[in-house]
Amino acid sequence: MDMQAQTLQSKFTALHSHKSFELFVISVIIISALLVGAKTYNISPLAQQIITLLDWTITFIFLAEISIRFIGHEQKSRFFFNAWNLFDTLIVIASLIPIEDSEMALLGRVIRIFRVLRMISFVPELRLLLNALFSALPQLGYVVALMFIIFYIYGAIGSFLFENINPVLWGDISISMLTLFRVMTFEDWTDVMYETMEVYPLSWIFYLSFIFLTAFAFLNIVIGIVVNVLEKENERVKQEQCKEEVSLEALQQQLAEVKALLVSQQAESQANNQKSKP
Amino acid sequence: MDMQAQTLQSKFTALHSHKSFELFVISVIIISALLVGAKTYNISPLAQQIITLLDWTITFIFLAEISIRFIGHEQKSRFFFNAWNLFDTLIVIASLIPIEDSEMALLGRVIRIFRVLRMISFVPELRLLLNALFSALPQLGYVVALMFIIFYIYGAIGSFLFENINPVLWGDISISMLTLFRVMTFEDWTDVMYETMEVYPLSWIFYLSFIFLTAFAFLNIVIGIVVNVLEKENERVKQEQCKEEVSLEALQQQLAEVKALLVSQQAESQANNQKSKP
Amino acid sequence: MDMQAQTLQSKFTALHSHKSFELFVISVIIISALLVGAKTYNISPLAQQIITLLDWTITFIFLAEISIRFIGHEQKSRFFFNAWNLFDTLIVIASLIPIEDSEMALLGRVIRIFRVLRMISFVPELRLLLNALFSALPQLGYVVALMFIIFYIYGAIGSFLFENINPVLWGDISISMLTLFRVMTFEDWTDVMYETMEVYPLSWIFYLSFIFLTAFAFLNIVIGIVVNVLEKENERVKQEQCKEEVSLEALQQQLAEVKALLVSQQAESQANNQKSKP
Amino acid sequence: MDMQAQTLQSKFTALHSHKSFELFVISVIIISALLVGAKTYNISPLAQQIITLLDWTITFIFLAEISIRFIGHEQKSRFFFNAWNLFDTLIVIASLIPIEDSEMALLGRVIRIFRVLRMISFVPELRLLLNALFSALPQLGYVVALMFIIFYIYGAIGSFLFENINPVLWGDISISMLTLFRVMTFEDWTDVMYETMEVYPLSWIFYLSFIFLTAFAFLNIVIGIVVNVLEKENERVKQEQCKEEVSLEALQQQLAEVKALLVSQQAESQANNQKSKP
Repeated sequence: MDMQAQTLQSKFTALHSHKSFELFVISVIIISALLVGAKTYNISPLAQQIITLLDWTITFIFLAEISIRFIGHEQKSRFFFNAWNLFDTLIVIASLIPIEDSEMALLGRVIRIFRVLRMISFVPELRLLLNALFSALPQLGYVVALMFIIFYIYGAIGSFLFENINPVLWGDISISMLTLFRVMTFEDWTDVMYETMEVYPLSWIFYLSFIFLTAFAFLNIVIGIVVNVLEKENERVKQEQCKEEVSLEALQQQLAEVKALLVSQQAESQANNQKSKP
Repeated sequence: MDMQAQTLQSKFTALHSHKSFELFVISVIIISALLVGAKTYNISPLAQQIITLLDWTITFIFLAEISIRFIGHEQKSRFFFNAWNLFDTLIVIASLIPIEDSEMALLGRVIRIFRVLRMISFVPELRLLLNALFSALPQLGYVVALMFIIFYIYGAIGSFLFENINPVLWGDISISMLTLFRVMTFEDWTDVMYETMEVYPLSWIFYLSFIFLTAFAFLNIVIGIVVNVLEKENERVKQEQCKEEVSLEALQQQLAEVKALLVSQQAESQANNQKSKP
Repeated sequence: MDMQAQTLQSKFTALHSHKSFELFVISVIIISALLVGAKTYNISPLAQQIITLLDWTITFIFLAEISIRFIGHEQKSRFFFNAWNLFDTLIVIASLIPIEDSEMALLGRVIRIFRVLRMISFVPELRLLLNALFSALPQLGYVVALMFIIFYIYGAIGSFLFENINPVLWGDISISMLTLFRVMTFEDWTDVMYETMEVYPLSWIFYLSFIFLTAFAFLNIVIGIVVNVLEKENERVKQEQCKEEVSLEALQQQLAEVKALLVSQQAESQANNQKSKP
Repeated sequence: MDMQAQTLQSKFTALHSHKSFELFVISVIIISALLVGAKTYNISPLAQQIITLLDWTITFIFLAEISIRFIGHEQKSRFFFNAWNLFDTLIVIASLIPIEDSEMALLGRVIRIFRVLRMISFVPELRLLLNALFSALPQLGYVVALMFIIFYIYGAIGSFLFENINPVLWGDISISMLTLFRVMTFEDWTDVMYETMEVYPLSWIFYLSFIFLTAFAFLNIVIGIVVNVLEKENERVKQEQCKEEVSLEALQQQLAEVKALLVSQQAESQANNQKSKP
C-alpha cells in the first residue's frame, strides 16, 4: 500500500512537471481570463449558459490540478506553507461555493477574476518578478513613513484651515489626505488652490511647499532604489575581483619565500667564505 | 554578357555609396516630407497640381533609387531579407498604385506620409537608434505582461462594479482598461473617482491601489533598463581589466621561474660545498 | 549634593535610554497624532472634553520627557545647540500657553499638529533620513538659482505681454510665476496658452520654450543627484581598493630588497673569485 | 604713451578682478532684476520716475563695467569672440537706444528683462552649469530628430483624418503637432480622444501608440544621459587606475632584472665550478 502510494506520488510529480501538462494549465488559465472579460459584455442567454458551463469546467480542472500538485508534493504538511499554494487553493475552494444571493454573486464574480492571478503563480518568471518587487518594499519603509507623516500634517492643517471653504475637499483628515494626493498628481490642483486663495491669499505657500516636499521625498525613493541596485552590482563586481586579490597575496608569499632563500644562501656563502679564508 | 552585368552591378554599388547621391536622396526625402505637410494646409488648385506633379516625380526617384540599390546588391535573393529594403519597396509600390476611389485616397495619403520613415531607413545613425530601442523591448516582456495582468484584473473589477454608474467609462472590459489608462496618466482621474465614490464610498481604495501598483511596475521598468545598462558597462570595464589580470599571471609565472632558479642554485652550491669539504 | 546630582543625572540618562521608556514615548506621540486627526471630525461635546483632557496629559508627558532628557544631558549649556532639542522644547512650551482668543486658537491647533513631527525627532532612522535629505540641498543650489532666473525672466515677459489679456493669471510678476509653475506641472496649461494665442498667435513659443527649459533643468537636478551618489559610491570602492594598492607597494619594496640582496651577493662572489684567482 | 596704456590696462584688469568690484556689479544686477519685477506692479508716477532714473543709472554702470572689461582685456580684437562678452555688449547697447514709439517700448522693456541673464554671465558657477547643459545637447541630437519624425508623421495623419472633426485642434500639420504635444503632456488628452472616437471608434490606437512611442523615446533620452554620465565617471576611474597599472609594469620589469641577475650568477658559478674542477 505504501509502495503504491509512493508510486502514485512520483507519477503525479512527473505528470505535473510534464511540459504538455504545463501548457494545458496555462491555456485553461488564459481561457478563464477571457471568460472573465467576456462576462463584462452584453451577451445572449445562450452564450451566458455556455460561459457558466465553461466556468464550472475550469473550476474542476483547477481543482484537479491542485489535487495533483498536492498528491505529488513530498511533504503534505508543508504544502500550505507556500503562499502561492495557499492562494491557489483558496481561489479554487471559493469558486466551488454555489452562490444564490445577488450580493454574494458579485463577490463570486470578483473571486473568479482573481483566477487570472494564477497566471503569476504558474509562470516562474512572473513569480520571481513579483517576489523581487515585494523584496524592495521594506527598504523603502522609512521613506514611506516620512511621506505619510508629511501627508498627515498637511492633511490636518488643511482640514483646520480650509474646512469652512469647501467641506467636500477638506471635510476631515482622511478627505484632506485624498485631496492632497490629488494635488500631488497635479490633477486640477490649481482649482483647489485658487478656491482657498480667495480666503487665505497666502495659501499658495501651503500647496507649493507640499508639492516640493512630496516631490523631493519621491525623488529620494527613486534614488534609494538606484543606489541599492548599484550597491548590489558593486558587491558582485567585488566578489569577482576577490580571485585577483588572492593571486596578489600568493605573489607576496612567493616573493617572501624567494627572499628567505636568498638570505639563507647569502648566510651560507659568507660562512663558506669565512671557512675558506684561513 | 555576364561580365557586363557585373560591371553594371559594381557601377551601381559605387553610385549608391557616392556621397552626393546620398545627399540627393536625403533632400528628396525631406522634400517629400514637406509635401506631406503642405497638403494639410488649404492650398490653391495650382499649388495642388504642382504638389501632385512633385509627388509623382518623388515616387519615380524613389523607384529608381531602389532599383539602383537592388541591381547593386550582391545577392539578389537576399535583398528582401533586410526589413528596411522590404519596407522601402512596399512604400514605393503602394505609392505607384493609381487611386480613384475617395476612401482609398485617404489610404494613399497615409502611405505617402510613411515615406518620411524612409529618413530612418536611410540615415544609419537613426537606424541604429531604432534597432537599439527595439532590442530593449524583449527584456521588458515580463514586466509588460505583469502590467497587462494588473490592467486586466482592475478592468474586470471596474466593469463589474461601476458599469451601472457610468457605462461610457466602464461599459465593458476594453472600455474599462482605456479608462484605467486615463487614470494612470492622472488625466481628470478624480472626476472618475468622485463619481463612483457616491455609490461606493470606499472605491478610492480601487483607484489608489491601482495607481500605486502601476507606478511601482513602471518604476521597475525604468530600473530594469538602468540595471541593464549598468551591467553592459561593467561587462566592458571587466573586459578591459582582463589585460591587467593577464600581466598579474605573467608576474606569478616569472616569480615561480625565479624561485626554481634559486632552488637549483642552492642545491648546486650545497653539492659544491659537500664536494669541497672532504 | 554634587554627588547626588550626578547620580540623578545618570539615573535619568539610563531611564531615557531604556527600551520600554522609548516605546512609551512613541506611543504617546502616536496617540497625540491620532488626537490631531480626531479633532478634524465632527465629534460630540463629551468626546471633545476627553480629547482636551488627553491633550493636556500628552503636553505634560512631553514636558516630563524633555525635562528628563535635559537633566540627563551631560552639558546643560549645549542642550539647545541641538536643533531637535530646541524644536521639541519650543513645541512643548507653545502647547503650554493657554489660549482664549479664537484667532490664536487656530495657531494653537496648528502647533499641536507639529507635535507629529516629534516622531521624526524621536525615531533615529527618520532623523537620519531627514538629515540626508537636507544635506543634498546645498549641492543643488546653483541649479535651483538657474531655475529661479528662468522663472523670473519668463514671469516678467509674461506679465508685460499678457497682463491685459488676463490679469488674474498675469497681473504682476509673482502671479505670473505662480501661473508658470502651473504650466510646468502641465495643469490646464493649454487653456492658459490658447487664451494668449488669440492675441499673440506665436505665444506658443513662449510656453514651449519655457517647458523645455524647466524640464531640462529639472532633468539636470535628477542627474546631478545620481552623479553625486555615483561619486560617493566610487569613493568608497576606491578606499577599499587602497588596501590592495598598499599590498602592491609592499610587493615592489620586497622585490627591491631581493634585487639589492642579489646585487650584493654578486659583488661578493666576484670579489671572492678575484681573490681565489691569483 | 604705450607704457601708459599698458599701465592703464593692468590697472583695469586689477580693478575688474577685485572682490568688492565683483560684489558691486552683482548688487547692481540684482537691483536691475528687482526693477524689472517692480515695473510689473501698478505703481505711482513718482515711483515710476525713480525707476526710470535708476534704470538709466544701471545702464551707465553696465556701460562702464563693459568698458573696463574691454580696456582690461589683453587682445582687444578677440574680446567679442567670447559669446558672453558679445551678449553683455549687445544688451547694454540696446538699453542705450532711446525709445519713443509704444511698440518699440515693449521691445525695450523685454531687453531690460534680459539684463537678468547678466547674472549668469557674471557668476562663473552659473556660467559653467549653463555650458554643461548646452554641451549635453548635441549628444541627444539623433533622439530629438527621431522624436520630431514621430511628431511629424502623427501630425500629418492626425491632420488628414481629424481635420473635419475639429479644425481648431487638427487644422494643419503645425496645429496638429501642438495638439500632439498637449497629448504627450497628458493635458486633457482624453477630451481630444473621445471627440475623435465618436467618428473613428478605433482612433484610441492612434493616441495610445503615440503616447507609448514618445514616452519610450523620452525614456531613451534620460537613459542616454545617464549612460553618458556613467561613461565619463568610468573614464575618470580608469585614468586613476592607470598609475596602479604602471606600478604593475614596474614590478614586471624589476622581476625581469632579478631573473637576469640570477641567470648570469648561475652561469658564472658554473664557470667557476668548471674552473675549480680540473
